[in-house]
Order: sequence, then C-alpha cells, then structure tokens
Amino acid sequence: MSALLQRLRALRVMAFDVDGVLTDGSLIYSDTGAEAKAFDVRDGQGMSLLRDAGIQLALISARRSAIVERRARELGVQHCFLGVAAKLPAFQGLLAELKLDAREAGYMGDDLLDLPVLTRAGFAASVPAAPAAVRSRVHYIAARPGGGGAVREVCELILESQGRLEELVAGYLK
Amino acid sequence: MSALLQRLRALRVMAFDVDGVLTDGSLIYSDTGAEAKAFDVRDGQGMSLLRDAGIQLALISARRSAIVERRARELGVQHCFLGVAAKLPAFQGLLAELKLDAREAGYMGDDLLDLPVLTRAGFAASVPAAPAAVRSRVHYIAARPGGGGAVREVCELILESQGRLEELVAGYLK
Amino acid sequence: MSALLQRLRALRVMAFDVDGVLTDGSLIYSDTGAEAKAFDVRDGQGMSLLRDAGIQLALISARRSAIVERRARELGVQHCFLGVAAKLPAFQGLLAELKLDAREAGYMGDDLLDLPVLTRAGFAASVPAAPAAVRSRVHYIAARPGGGGAVREVCELILESQGRLEELVAGYLK
Amino acid sequence: MSALLQRLRALRVMAFDVDGVLTDGSLIYSDTGAEAKAFDVRDGQGMSLLRDAGIQLALISARRSAIVERRARELGVQHCFLGVAAKLPAFQGLLAELKLDAREAGYMGDDLLDLPVLTRAGFAASVPAAPAAVRSRVHYIAARPGGGGAVREVCELILESQGRLEELVAGYLK
Repeated sequence: MSALLQRLRALRVMAFDVDGVLTDGSLIYSDTGAEAKAFDVRDGQGMSLLRDAGIQLALISARRSAIVERRARELGVQHCFLGVAAKLPAFQGLLAELKLDAREAGYMGDDLLDLPVLTRAGFAASVPAAPAAVRSRVHYIAARPGGGGAVREVCELILESQGRLEELVAGYLK
Repeated sequence: MSALLQRLRALRVMAFDVDGVLTDGSLIYSDTGAEAKAFDVRDGQGMSLLRDAGIQLALISARRSAIVERRARELGVQHCFLGVAAKLPAFQGLLAELKLDAREAGYMGDDLLDLPVLTRAGFAASVPAAPAAVRSRVHYIAARPGGGGAVREVCELILESQGRLEELVAGYLK
Repeated sequence: MSALLQRLRALRVMAFDVDGVLTDGSLIYSDTGAEAKAFDVRDGQGMSLLRDAGIQLALISARRSAIVERRARELGVQHCFLGVAAKLPAFQGLLAELKLDAREAGYMGDDLLDLPVLTRAGFAASVPAAPAAVRSRVHYIAARPGGGGAVREVCELILESQGRLEELVAGYLK
Repeated sequence: MSALLQRLRALRVMAFDVDGVLTDGSLIYSDTGAEAKAFDVRDGQGMSLLRDAGIQLALISARRSAIVERRARELGVQHCFLGVAAKLPAFQGLLAELKLDAREAGYMGDDLLDLPVLTRAGFAASVPAAPAAVRSRVHYIAARPGGGGAVREVCELILESQGRLEELVAGYLK
C-alpha cells in the first residue's frame, strides 16, 4: 500500500483553510463596505459526501466572516475556527476535542500561515496556486484550482482511499 | 444515423440543472446576507433559440432562489422545479405534464444528484468540471465550461441535429 | 495594402456590443434584485485612446442598463443605443447622424443578434467565444476574450493601422 | 551578479498600480450604483511579507476608491496615492518623502499611464495582460496574472533577491 493511501485511510477528520482553498483567493470588496466570497457548489457536495461517510469536517481561517459561518452551516461543518491568530493551536484543539492523533487528521491550506498545520497533519494537501514553499511540503497538490474543484478532488480522493466512493455513487444509481 | 443524432432528434423538451451548468458553480455570498449568481448571455440566447424552435425548456434545481426565478422568466423557461429534494420525481412530473416519453426529454447536469435523471433521460449532457462518476455516464460532455458556453453548445447541438440551426442563422442574415 | 488594413484605415466610428464584448458575457444577478457587470480597465483605456485619436465611439446593446450608461459616461462614449429591439436600425441611425458611409464604421459583436450589423459594417470584429455562425462572418476575431482584452486588442489594431499608436505611446514616454 | 538581481537588491520601497495589478482589471459595477473589486489573498500575504522584511509599500492609482483605501489599511500599506491625474509626480513625491533614489524604488504597472514611472523606477514589473508597449519596457513580467498571483510573484522575487525569503519561510516551520 502506498504511503499516500495509508495516510488517506487513517483520516477521521478533514480540516480546510478558507480563502484560496474553498475559494479562488478572491476577496471581493464593495465600496458600500460589503465583502463577498465565491464558493463552488461541487466542492460543497464533496464535503457533504465526506461528512456522510463519517469523516468530521473543520474550517480553520485567520479571517472571521459571516460569509464563512453561513457556508459552514449550510454544509454541516462540525468544527469552525475562524479569526484565529495562529492555526496550530486551533488544529491541536480540534485533535484534543475529538481525541484524535495528528495522523487521523488531514488539512488543506495554501499559504505560509498554513505551514505549521500542514507539516504536522497526517495528510497535507494544497492547491496549484500555492507558493513553492507550501507546494514542496504537502503530500498532495490538487490538479483543480482552489474554489473550483480542488476541495472536491481531495474529498473524492479520501472517499476512494477508504473504499466509500463507489457505494456513494451507487446510491444515486439505484 | 449515429446513436447520438437519433437521441437529439427525438427531443421535445430540454431540462437543465442550474448551479454548475447555467453557472460555473460559483455561489457568491455577501456578508450582508445577499447571494449572487452569474449567468452567461450567450447561454441564454441558446435557450431562447431552442424555445423558438419549439423545444420546451425546463430547470430542475435542488436550490430555490429568486435569482433563478428571475433568469427563468427572462428566458421564457416554461417549466421550473426549484428547491426539489430529489430530481427524479420532478423530471417524471415534467414528462407526465407534457405527455412525453423519457426518450423525448433531455437533461444536462453536473453532479451525483443529477445521476437519477441523467441515467433515464433520452439525451444526457454534462460539463467538463463534473466528477468522473457523472462524466462517464452521459451521452455528451460539452467542451465549454458551465456558465460559459456549455449550455449554448448543447442548444446548438440539438438545433443542428434537428436541422433548425441554419434556418435560425439565416433569419439574422436576410 | 492588405484588405483588412484598408478596412481599418477607413474607420471614423467604432461601435461595440456590450455583453460578451465589453464584458465576458456574465450577467451577475443578486437575490436582492440588483444586477452587476464587470468591465476591464484596459479595454476602457483602449476606447479612450481611440476617442483621443478622433475615432467616434458607440455602444449598441439589446439590453438597457444603468450600469452601461455609467460606464459609457466614464469612457466618454459619444453614441449610446441601449435597449434596442433590433441593432441594424440603430447602426443605420448612427451612420445618418454622422453622415458616414458603412465603410467608415466598425462594429464588434458576439452573437446572432449582431449579424445584421456585422455583415454590413466596414470592419466587423468578434471574440473567441462567439458562436461559429458569427466567427465565420467577421473580418477579425480577437485573441483575447470579451471583457478581458478583446476590445483593447481591436482598439490598438485600429490605431496601429492608422499610424497613431506609436505617437500615443510616445506621449507617455517623453 | 545579474542586472536584474542588482536592481532587486537595491529596493527599499515597492509601489503598485491597483486595477490590473492588484486586481485582474475587472471594474465590477452594480445597477444600484455600487462598485466592487476583487483582491487576491495570497497577493496580500506577499505584500505583508515584503513589509515585514522592511520594504516600504506604496499604491499609485489614477482612480480613487474607498475599496482601495480599505485594502491598503488591511495590508498596512504606508504610502497611498489615489486619484492622481499623473503618476510620475506621485512617484517623485514618494522618493522625496523617503529620501530615496529612483534606483531604490520599484514599480509594478500594467498600462500606458504607468510608463512614466515604469521607465524611471529602479525595478519595473508588469503583468502578462499588459499591452506590448508596456511589456517591452519593463525588467520583469510576472508569469501569473494581475489579481491572481502576479503581485505575490514579484514580492517573493524581491525577498529572494535580498536573501530574506528562506528565513521568512523558516519562521513558519519551527
């Protein structure tokens, strides 16, 4: 069994950074003071599939936003750490709360701020647009971009490694 | 006559999923609580051409949205099923209402939720960004992306198969 | 002198379609009822350069929108035909108003609705995403997409053909 | 030592144009009269890294916008010249204020309006979508697009040339 497969099979929780991972990194500002973000509908379905398969979902973001809270509720994300100054304590808190080992937790991030978690998570994933210092330190770089399929790709990878994807698809075919 | 051509010629109604098909899959959320979607002007023209050629139009979406209702009105879509928990009953209701056989109805979708309809429609189409489980089960995958020409491409394909495209173009050239 | 060059040199007015040409074709709808469009800053500079070189600017769009009126004012577009049911009468009205021959007027459009003008304008241009029926009937297809450089490309093409581009650039280098 | 490396090592302040550089050039207009711009989260991190390394940050834009003022505050940009009719006086004012020579100041711009500064700055950078007249006159053209990594790429280039990138990355790895 490949090393990557072993890492994927051990996962019980999958955590995601938000900007650049669940989005393409765009921070859309209006001159009325409003802010907007664009999420991908298929990325969301991937997270729902993961949750349905019994993998817990988490978001860890340095920014706090009502937008992300709304999207997290919509997707049934169980663990939200928003507006955290440092990401590692949030990740460690998540492990403690779930009584899990770091090998059982995955993380997907796209920038230097994510390195403390990416270098400790059992499975570390990133996006094509991440800086080289990040891309060179993760186990998997999605082919699709952040906010446009990268999260879905990682969700399907985990489901497939755990032998759950085929059964989930079959549920839609009967 | 090719099998695909035969499928296309039989169509009397064409139904579309919304997010990921009529859009690129982006769910744009504002921190004021508003939501936005981006439609493509040329996709809309394609749907209008289809309707002008006597093909009925339908939308089937798991999400309910005032945005989609507005776009449907603008394009003269005759049959709207929005906020449906499952898509197959909506599709079957459409067939019953129009007294059509599944072979006379096409559907374009982009995710697992669309499989029950895609595997029963006379003509099933999808987009390049759909997951493999969907792409492997449709009759046609558009070259252009959802929200950026995929719908137009499918509309022109149907019109051409039914020998109507040339005449519609000619109407603009006289 | 090439046929294209001859066409470009004769131009005294350049008219543009809006959706799909000045934009990428996205109609952004919000569930608050608002609508948005995205214009390109460099496309706008190209139109300003054209106007500075003495070429009149026009917009001809089937849709009426406060957004387009704002952008037109900002760019100093002299002739706006918005919400027109048919584009040819607007184009002919423009020629009459300016006492110009069709050979002295260019038009850039991206769909079947534009064909009546595209087939009569002295110079007809389009975008890569236009349908084949349009692309096959214009004198020039921009390499860059609508709303992302197509208009700038056409503006520079005209300026260069009339020997004005170098002088305009020189003005920024002294 | 290469000429480019020498230019990069001398930099004490880095100035950026906004539209087309910090954004992809999209001016998003709503029919409610609002305007929006999309910034890239990783570009912003790059500017923060530059500032942390002691390089001063500046923005020089012909347009004035509350959006840009907000983003500038968020990133800790020390010098903002917004709504300037001509960019060269702003750049010269920046040099005077910081008591720096032009060789110690970099500038990144994407259009003809930027040429007066680009041709005088110690380091001049641009984006792939800039017109040929600009691309042919700068020291560096980013591989990534404006608003999608071009600024980050230039920030990392400067940090690497000054031997600071590795140490900044190391700070996230300990």
